[in-house]
Amino acid sequence: MPEFSNAPLTTWRGTVLPQWVDYNGHLNDAYYMVVFSQAINALMGLIGLDADGRKATGHSIYTLEAHVNYLLEVKQDVAIEVRTQVLGSDAKRLHVYQSMHVADTEPLLAANEQMLLNVDMSGPRAAPFAPKVLEKVQALTAAHRDRQRPPYAGRRIALPS
Amino acid sequence: MPEFSNAPLTTWRGTVLPQWVDYNGHLNDAYYMVVFSQAINALMGLIGLDADGRKATGHSIYTLEAHVNYLLEVKQDVAIEVRTQVLGSDAKRLHVYQSMHVADTEPLLAANEQMLLNVDMSGPRAAPFAPKVLEKVQALTAAHRDRQRPPYAGRRIALPS
Repeated sequence: MPEFSNAPLTTWRGTVLPQWVDYNGHLNDAYYMVVFSQAINALMGLIGLDADGRKATGHSIYTLEAHVNYLLEVKQDVAIEVRTQVLGSDAKRLHVYQSMHVADTEPLLAANEQMLLNVDMSGPRAAPFAPKVLEKVQALTAAHRDRQRPPYAGRRIALPS
Repeated sequence: MPEFSNAPLTTWRGTVLPQWVDYNGHLNDAYYMVVFSQAINALMGLIGLDADGRKATGHSIYTLEAHVNYLLEVKQDVAIEVRTQVLGSDAKRLHVYQSMHVADTEPLLAANEQMLLNVDMSGPRAAPFAPKVLEKVQALTAAHRDRQRPPYAGRRIALPS
């Protein structure tokens, strides 16, 4: 039985907090990234880089690049969730896609693509994943390899022509 | 004398707050977006969409899409600033590029590209900029038109091949 299934991982569940809402009365653009970042923390736990794993390896994960598409607004106190899919990886990088939804529903509130880098904190400097972490990264990458490419991955920002 | 010069606008100055720093001991990835979002608020003031302008027009600005490149880490209490350049606009969209720096220095801490949409809050629905706002948007777009395309605009996220 493989460790990870083909399904995206539900990495974060919670509600839209009052301090995340702005003068437009909805989840502020920046706080979508706070939620997505917390979902990445959960993903780090799944590959062995929770607080204990970070201590054991001396490694952590830095975000190199992030892209967010804002699709629907969402109001305070609404229950939301993040689903995470691995798009690819190499010896020290993990390429992920995340979607935000109202809990237990399908419509996309926002899409988020991130490139993550494994970092040896003694530098800090880029470093290959520790062997046990790499095993998990490769297992997750393999589990998600046959999923369809999600709609908001690989985008450039541009005015419509 | 034109209203706006060719130079990027310094839209935000402040320090890295303790609540923005994570277990890696540096400004957390999500909080770069909090700073960039606050810089966009200042830009909104410059085009007539501060709180008074939002009330007068019934309009506000929503972020459609945002892209961040994380280039250097930055620690708590460091003084930082954001510079904002307009890359383009149309009747209801504003395409901007922002750079984050240690205050009064040139090295890039992070780059941020955003596509912003004017929204009639009575919907809410996309709507053309109010006439006075459009004047400012066009003046800013014209002032920045001859600037060099910044290095981290128009990127796609991908693993190196």
